[in-house]
Amino acid sequence: MRFSPDTPATCHGAARGRAVGEVFLVGAGPGDPDLLTVKALRLIGAADVVVHDRLVSPEIMALVPPATRRVDVGKMPRCHKVPQEEINALLVDLAGQGLRVVRLKGGDPLIFGRGSEEAADLRAAGIAVTCVPGITSAQGAASTTGVPLTHRGLATGVRYVTGHRAKDAPLDLDWTGLSCPDTTLVIYMGAANMAEIARQLVARGCRADMPVLAIAAATTARERRVLSTLRDIPADLDAARLDGPILFVVGEVVSLYSALPSATATGAQAVVAADA
Amino acid sequence: MRFSPDTPATCHGAARGRAVGEVFLVGAGPGDPDLLTVKALRLIGAADVVVHDRLVSPEIMALVPPATRRVDVGKMPRCHKVPQEEINALLVDLAGQGLRVVRLKGGDPLIFGRGSEEAADLRAAGIAVTCVPGITSAQGAASTTGVPLTHRGLATGVRYVTGHRAKDAPLDLDWTGLSCPDTTLVIYMGAANMAEIARQLVARGCRADMPVLAIAAATTARERRVLSTLRDIPADLDAARLDGPILFVVGEVVSLYSALPSATATGAQAVVAADA
Repeated sequence: MRFSPDTPATCHGAARGRAVGEVFLVGAGPGDPDLLTVKALRLIGAADVVVHDRLVSPEIMALVPPATRRVDVGKMPRCHKVPQEEINALLVDLAGQGLRVVRLKGGDPLIFGRGSEEAADLRAAGIAVTCVPGITSAQGAASTTGVPLTHRGLATGVRYVTGHRAKDAPLDLDWTGLSCPDTTLVIYMGAANMAEIARQLVARGCRADMPVLAIAAATTARERRVLSTLRDIPADLDAARLDGPILFVVGEVVSLYSALPSATATGAQAVVAADA
Repeated sequence: MRFSPDTPATCHGAARGRAVGEVFLVGAGPGDPDLLTVKALRLIGAADVVVHDRLVSPEIMALVPPATRRVDVGKMPRCHKVPQEEINALLVDLAGQGLRVVRLKGGDPLIFGRGSEEAADLRAAGIAVTCVPGITSAQGAASTTGVPLTHRGLATGVRYVTGHRAKDAPLDLDWTGLSCPDTTLVIYMGAANMAEIARQLVARGCRADMPVLAIAAATTARERRVLSTLRDIPADLDAARLDGPILFVVGEVVSLYSALPSATATGAQAVVAADA
């Protein structure tokens, strides 16, 4: 192994050897601790402080040594999460105290993780930053459901988008490009807006019976799935009452799901527990 | 940790307890052994046989215990790789001998890895299959270059496509959807066709000076990068003579590259070694 916490391979910040600490932006992956990278696991064990949010699974937080300081930036007194600017300032402050900081994020820090914003502020403050990628929820869900993200004859590529919108802002999605039948579409943070997303995709040419697989808490013991279609996903989602962040996989590849012996679902509205 | 080689969490094949072996479709990640998952590392150590191809780095193959049998399906006497059908049949045969088989693939087995084809044949033969995701080259390159795949204000999503084509077949890409300015485009296996890809993207509305970062052997000691634009990438690529599989990141996020202290490149044609 070439890396250790003392010799980051990627140091986009200050010169080494200063009396300040450093920050590792570490992907925690989808939830299963076994899907942490070797590097992430080692950094978690060597951290002075772990700054985490609600997307990091309890199973992974259990790997943080008891004596290690933890800062939860996903919770606030009145259920508001800490603003991004405050997280950035917190990381700068902790590193400025000379600490080895692991900023632990669900999935990958550079895909929907705002890790690049944190990295920019840290670099501006002269603090060394190392990014460690993590398995995305999409990859985790593919591995447990058996639904590939690409498959010869069904999908030549894959696209990750976010279905989240800030307050009353319109959904910031390029609908025409999204309705490409040859591309698997993975929607993060889309539960609140899935009805509109499905309607828009059908209006732009996706077939209404295009299969959709919704996965909550992928790769954990709490994983739950809903097999549906663009037409039925709003109602099926309401009926299923899935907990936690939900990932939606839309595309022809989902047709491979029912072919799996482990998939007991045979149609829309079927909710199957993970076989994990 | 919930998983061990003896208790696969995801078993889409035969019932457990049969006298046949089993197959683990394992993502080897982009190249750096430190970016293997904990699960992948353990499975590699416990395998009876490792079936691998040319996209698995020498550093990772060095982790296979010396006594473990290896089958390289990336090489053939006259430099032809083993056809996919033969690989599938080989995996069925090895598992049929009662062996614990690790099928090791660069990146993630369910993204451009044809892992789902192998899984389908194995399941049809009644053999238990477990998929283990791996860090993609795109994620690896993002972590070493500091170029995020999404970034507020620059890219709301990311899309992976393949720029490879079979023999004289046309490039199987949806050009209109690909030229979305809000989406980072990552092109795998595109070196041979990058001139056409860049030309088509510009013809569909991408600006000619859209930045492009080409990365070879991301996350390894052999990592090399070329910073360019859609207009200049064909010539810059010719001049750079990069070795091995090359990944292209196209999009506004690449503009963040030159902001990095570690990025000594200041314009097109600059070739910088990895700081790894």
